Amino acid sequence: MPTNEQLLSIFENHLAQLEPPVEPERLYAPLVYSMSGGGKRLRPMLLLLACGAYSDDIRPALPAATAVEVFHNFTLLHDDIMDNASVRRGKPTVCAKWGSNVAILSGDAMLICAYRMLRRSPEELLPRILDIFNKMAAEVCEGQQYDMDFESRTRVSVVDYMRMIELKTSVLLAGSASIGALIGGASDDDCRKLSRFAGELGLAFQLQDDLLDSFGTEKELGKRIGGDILEGKQTYLMVTAMSRADESVRDILRHTHRDTSLTDDEKIARIKAVYEQLDVKRLTEQQISVRFERALGILDTLDIPRERTIHLREFASSLIGRRK
Amino acid sequence: MPTNEQLLSIFENHLAQLEPPVEPERLYAPLVYSMSGGGKRLRPMLLLLACGAYSDDIRPALPAATAVEVFHNFTLLHDDIMDNASVRRGKPTVCAKWGSNVAILSGDAMLICAYRMLRRSPEELLPRILDIFNKMAAEVCEGQQYDMDFESRTRVSVVDYMRMIELKTSVLLAGSASIGALIGGASDDDCRKLSRFAGELGLAFQLQDDLLDSFGTEKELGKRIGGDILEGKQTYLMVTAMSRADESVRDILRHTHRDTSLTDDEKIARIKAVYEQLDVKRLTEQQISVRFERALGILDTLDIPRERTIHLREFASSLIGRRK
Repeated sequence: MPTNEQLLSIFENHLAQLEPPVEPERLYAPLVYSMSGGGKRLRPMLLLLACGAYSDDIRPALPAATAVEVFHNFTLLHDDIMDNASVRRGKPTVCAKWGSNVAILSGDAMLICAYRMLRRSPEELLPRILDIFNKMAAEVCEGQQYDMDFESRTRVSVVDYMRMIELKTSVLLAGSASIGALIGGASDDDCRKLSRFAGELGLAFQLQDDLLDSFGTEKELGKRIGGDILEGKQTYLMVTAMSRADESVRDILRHTHRDTSLTDDEKIARIKAVYEQLDVKRLTEQQISVRFERALGILDTLDIPRERTIHLREFASSLIGRRK
Repeated sequence: MPTNEQLLSIFENHLAQLEPPVEPERLYAPLVYSMSGGGKRLRPMLLLLACGAYSDDIRPALPAATAVEVFHNFTLLHDDIMDNASVRRGKPTVCAKWGSNVAILSGDAMLICAYRMLRRSPEELLPRILDIFNKMAAEVCEGQQYDMDFESRTRVSVVDYMRMIELKTSVLLAGSASIGALIGGASDDDCRKLSRFAGELGLAFQLQDDLLDSFGTEKELGKRIGGDILEGKQTYLMVTAMSRADESVRDILRHTHRDTSLTDDEKIARIKAVYEQLDVKRLTEQQISVRFERALGILDTLDIPRERTIHLREFASSLIGRRK
């Protein structure tokens, strides 16, 4: 079985060999641009690793792995229009570079392209793969809509927040693992378990992302610390703090990012102080640990020898191990 | 076999029974709103009629008929954002009513919904149905991109224009007919023929739309006459006129819609006079006739008794007969 590094390189080679149409240029150039932006390729890696746990031949899973990555990049492309974002992975976003009309339409073409890739999966599995993919795709849109809805809500509960990130992030990882296991030949039961594994891992990963934004280093985060705080974004830290604060502290949490008498650094310091004071940092770390351990625990229950799960374990640790 | 009127009502009943999710409300309400806008249901009708030509049971084709109609409404929803359109079929567009972010995301959800519907087609045909649908969906996006590209081009050839409307309009009608025939049990050869039939019909229909905008009545067109002229849009009439005009008349064609010394009625009258003078009206009518007759001629070559094509013929005549 290939190492995780080799697997990533197999996937990147596969991607590089795909030749999307050239014309019309303004439709397909953004697609190529967006796919070449790198990123961690988490979803295809999970899909291929889940397949590899059951089969030594991961090639039948490469089209579906491409499909989930194309789908993920499609969501980023459209999210960037809605968020009016100008930079992604250190490069101009498609909407900043080509304008939002091109970004809307080339995003649509990407979503269709994801389905074209998926179609190349083993034919006898196609109906079930489509069921998983369609459900997951709809749920990711639901998650994005809840995320936008939260912007205009003054209060978001921890439960609502967890449900939103489950839809927006976990569901796609869970679906990827499930499709990979299916193609690898796993039983329905093991497909469900790997889906739950990836779902828990996805939650841990998203919570870690929230944590790093306030308490990580720029190197770990890959961008400036405190962005979420300055935007007044709902994060696990913010909704947990709100649930534990009294009314006066809630006012601080709600209004600091708009306080024009403070510098950015002062705003970040003030909110972080509240997080520390309310024990939010430790609670978040605990929640990440719980989800991570639960994910690993699920791997113990699969109907395959433990050594076949080693690469999945390594992958999980490489994701959540960032602060360990 | 049901009459075309009955068939439309079977389809509308099927649509009405679908229950899309309720939450999140801002994701799914625009979907329901957009699907309830009426319209002529051309694509599902063609799909069901093509199926009905081969099989007395059209029920297996209802999900695919829904899929092409949902897909069509998805394209309108996103096109309206790109065109900044505020009214569609006499009602506010989704982007005017909910804003463009909601329109982008609910459009995405609609495209995914189209694939969910398609998935309910007979399983043994699913791979081939997906092939037709995916190709057609990608081509519709290509057509829309060419249409947007034309806005910034000073000269569009008749050939380029025909290719654009083929992609933007015909391809979806052709794919619908082809999927319907496939589900009905037609041979590959007949599927291809019905695809060409619908493609030619689609071109005739689009050219007729272009013609009515200048030379129809408000009643036929369903909106004010001359809209394309006032927008300076590329239409079959405009690109044909440009190809036949000398340099001085081309200047009139290019600049009249921006001439602030003229009223709207004067602009429309001036361009229509040029069209008459260059014989563009007659040439367009001729082109519509040629396409329409070609479409009907293809029906003669199908491997079924002529009486099974009667409803398709009626449908075609009801579309193109508007001025006859």
